Amino acid sequence: MLSEDEKRLQEYLEGFLTPERKERMRTVLEQRTRYITCVLEDLFDPRNGSAVIRHCDALGIHELHAIENKHRFKSDTQVDLGTAQWLDMRIYRKPRGVAPTSVKGRRRAAQASPDGIPPPEKSRTPTVLADLKSRGYRIVATSPHADDDALPETLDLAAGPVAVVFGTEKHGISDAVRAAADVFLRIPMVGFVESFNLSASAAIVFHVLSRRIRLEGLPWRLEAEDAERVMHTWLRRTVPHAERLIARFEAENALGG
Amino acid sequence: MLSEDEKRLQEYLEGFLTPERKERMRTVLEQRTRYITCVLEDLFDPRNGSAVIRHCDALGIHELHAIENKHRFKSDTQVDLGTAQWLDMRIYRKPRGVAPTSVKGRRRAAQASPDGIPPPEKSRTPTVLADLKSRGYRIVATSPHADDDALPETLDLAAGPVAVVFGTEKHGISDAVRAAADVFLRIPMVGFVESFNLSASAAIVFHVLSRRIRLEGLPWRLEAEDAERVMHTWLRRTVPHAERLIARFEAENALGG
Repeated sequence: MLSEDEKRLQEYLEGFLTPERKERMRTVLEQRTRYITCVLEDLFDPRNGSAVIRHCDALGIHELHAIENKHRFKSDTQVDLGTAQWLDMRIYRKPRGVAPTSVKGRRRAAQASPDGIPPPEKSRTPTVLADLKSRGYRIVATSPHADDDALPETLDLAAGPVAVVFGTEKHGISDAVRAAADVFLRIPMVGFVESFNLSASAAIVFHVLSRRIRLEGLPWRLEAEDAERVMHTWLRRTVPHAERLIARFEAENALGG
Repeated sequence: MLSEDEKRLQEYLEGFLTPERKERMRTVLEQRTRYITCVLEDLFDPRNGSAVIRHCDALGIHELHAIENKHRFKSDTQVDLGTAQWLDMRIYRKPRGVAPTSVKGRRRAAQASPDGIPPPEKSRTPTVLADLKSRGYRIVATSPHADDDALPETLDLAAGPVAVVFGTEKHGISDAVRAAADVFLRIPMVGFVESFNLSASAAIVFHVLSRRIRLEGLPWRLEAEDAERVMHTWLRRTVPHAERLIARFEAENALGG
């Protein structure tokens, strides 16, 4: 629940929005879901990350997890069109001591360590997926696995919320994802090429799932308290000059109190 | 129908393929369709064209029309992964006399024309769409239009084959497409951003339609004669050293005859 102070701050910030803007934010908020969440594992092309951010916003998928193992997660506002600010994005930064990806960086690291060998790499994937599981998510690995893989249209959504994991561009999901997966999902293909690019895969999967949760009567909406908190965050992030306004509000409140 | 000579040439070329390769080509061929065809109007980003080429191959959509009005259609084999050779791609090259897109080109054109005014631009879109209509295609414009727009899931596919038109990246479909459209199609969105990028839109639309034609008992398969012709083209394009082999075959045949 928002505290009384937060509620007053929220009303104050909302005062700086046009009614149309406020209405737009409410409309979008009503369509947000955490029933489907997106997990990106170690992407390296910023265009892909950005494209997926944009898909998530467009389809109401509010929570996006970006795991860095070897690569820094970057997005490109030219591609995501600034939508990242409307999402609950959780970026798990590359752990210290991981071998840098650039040749220059690797050379430097090799020089720095006494035996000339970079420290072993450590994946953050297992802990991120374990956290999601403990929150009740089923882990859906997007990778062909066996003939009985689920399709976006047949994945069991009634069994509970899903965290759909997309792997790195070249090699797909890691063994850590495979080990944690509750379900494997594939998109049927009938051509010479046997994969879609990451952005296209994510668009297809999330389009289908996002439509299905709405049609199948699943409890996909944000809880009231969660929605209130999201609106609060949006206001703080997106009202023009919000920081200055918050400082003023706090000063005035302290003065008035 | 293939002529007797073509049939013999085909057998000859097939002799240079492994049984696995031949089998793979037959399997892919059986899944090809012209019931859905893709029309790209004046794209300018080669990555988009290439991504759509790859989607079409992966989903069995055999025929792709790329109309150039102001921009040259280019694809990038890094992105399409060489799939263009497996499609019936029809590129309508930019007509002569169109104002060049670069500033330098425009200046040169202005200098060349006696009154200093570049010739009027002429769109090839109307004739391409008219040709498709005369072949029985319904023109599906991918652009929000009105509340009753079709969705990929609700588009009437039983009414006949569809040519799905995607417009240029920034401005979407042209007025020529709007004028020729039998149906408007939109992808439902519930976020702050009100569009998908072109590659994502095409992936969603073609995934859904490609699945639907297969499930809804529509006459989506290539006709036998068409399929035979496609296989012939594939062999000529993809058997290693096909040109040399064909020359040898023709020489031997002439010698033998």
